[in-house]
Amino acid sequence: MATSFVQRLRKLAQDKQSLLCVGLDIEQERLPAFLGRGRSAVVDFGRAIIEATADVALAYKLNFAFFEAYGVDGWRALEELRALIPSHCLAVADAKRGDIGNTMRMYARAIFGTMGFDAATASPYLGRDAVEPLLADPTRGVFFLCLTSNPGARDFQYFSDGHRRLFEYTAATVVSWDSAGNCGLVVGATHGEELAQVRSIAPALPFLIPGIGAQGGDLEAAVLHGTDERGELALFNSSRGILYKSSGHDFAEAARAEAQALRDAINAARSDKLRTRNEPPASSVSHPV
Amino acid sequence: MATSFVQRLRKLAQDKQSLLCVGLDIEQERLPAFLGRGRSAVVDFGRAIIEATADVALAYKLNFAFFEAYGVDGWRALEELRALIPSHCLAVADAKRGDIGNTMRMYARAIFGTMGFDAATASPYLGRDAVEPLLADPTRGVFFLCLTSNPGARDFQYFSDGHRRLFEYTAATVVSWDSAGNCGLVVGATHGEELAQVRSIAPALPFLIPGIGAQGGDLEAAVLHGTDERGELALFNSSRGILYKSSGHDFAEAARAEAQALRDAINAARSDKLRTRNEPPASSVSHPV
Repeated sequence: MATSFVQRLRKLAQDKQSLLCVGLDIEQERLPAFLGRGRSAVVDFGRAIIEATADVALAYKLNFAFFEAYGVDGWRALEELRALIPSHCLAVADAKRGDIGNTMRMYARAIFGTMGFDAATASPYLGRDAVEPLLADPTRGVFFLCLTSNPGARDFQYFSDGHRRLFEYTAATVVSWDSAGNCGLVVGATHGEELAQVRSIAPALPFLIPGIGAQGGDLEAAVLHGTDERGELALFNSSRGILYKSSGHDFAEAARAEAQALRDAINAARSDKLRTRNEPPASSVSHPV
Repeated sequence: MATSFVQRLRKLAQDKQSLLCVGLDIEQERLPAFLGRGRSAVVDFGRAIIEATADVALAYKLNFAFFEAYGVDGWRALEELRALIPSHCLAVADAKRGDIGNTMRMYARAIFGTMGFDAATASPYLGRDAVEPLLADPTRGVFFLCLTSNPGARDFQYFSDGHRRLFEYTAATVVSWDSAGNCGLVVGATHGEELAQVRSIAPALPFLIPGIGAQGGDLEAAVLHGTDERGELALFNSSRGILYKSSGHDFAEAARAEAQALRDAINAARSDKLRTRNEPPASSVSHPV
């Protein structure tokens, strides 16, 4: 039997002792000036970032929008960068596609076939038959939008039937879809309490958690509430905080230092969580869960 | 003041006496064999379809998935076909993008900037701040997913707060976003009653209505319930039913005949609707609205 995505994620994360995802949201305007502009500058920049961080990153997330903005040249850079991600890291296509079944079949072909990504983000709102083509291969993961980190998340994701808000209902629905171990959820790190609620609904699903930074006070809460009971099954993504740490010739070293600090901060928070969990009840009671 | 998207749509539709949108969901496997395969075959096919139908079609809708499946070559075909759509027709980017604001800014650049589409489909579920970059230019329209035509539409779009289902709430929310005359809705043609409900919530928004065919019994109901009170402000899309009408050398003529029949059937249903509306009450009562 093939290894499911969730098994592969858990194994890789244990091997690397990392839950860090580096987001390659590359903006040409923010590249170090000495690299120039255009496709080769984007690929040179991305290659240097990947080479400098591949031993500390569990995954890389490519945000398609930042490449599509440059048309054919951007799409070529996307494919070139995807090919540079080593096999000991997961390549996540952050494309958030969502359409009816015959269209999703083509998106699945693009993302998992033509480009060979290990996982993708997707929109669940067209329902089960729409997402089935994305879930056909149990070795490829799909992180469904559940609760996002922007203010407008409240416009729809908090719409409630009196018992559950849409994001809770979404989490429960995606759990019901997960027959092959390849469903996950996108849950913003900015919502500590809601993150805990989603984790209680979906204890065994991997979460992709955007919106963290090494300096952010939310990191510990995100790790505490976002990981599973073993302190695993979460990908914590940082993009701009890593990519643009320095605009000088040391940009890749600076990115590496930031990535390493973030990986270590995540691991420290995981240790805290597991230690607290293993302490006698009298002590755990005082922990603000 | 610049002409808003909705004004432009109404004017073009009146000039052409057409509400037909031709969906260019081009599948290489379904191309007439004599055209061969690959990018040039896709572009040759699309060009012939556009040239044969441009006087009867109000709009063309390019479904990005069908191009992305072929990577860089597919993206190039997408750009080439977009450039072939004449300015007396609307070019609709059917990409259904949905992400947070800084990412949507890049998708807006790709779709409205780099490729110069007149309108796009989008996912509303990340809320107002997420979609604002797409709505920045009042001359470009955005059709937000509201109610889709697939069975799984029920999984989320019928989620109810006791008063309204999510698709009704979505319609009302998009109405509240429409300060510049460039918001629209995607509403599946397979739901006659629901289409009428959405039209009553959003009387002045343009609808993009997929899922129709010249032979489909639903066409009259879709026109009756989907157009506005003037029998306007709707784009009725057909893709496969037009593109693959013939696999012989006459494929473009066959597509034209089908497009013309569909445009005429839509116009006949519009006339019926307006005639019924203008008849004395005694007669209208018998009409099954």
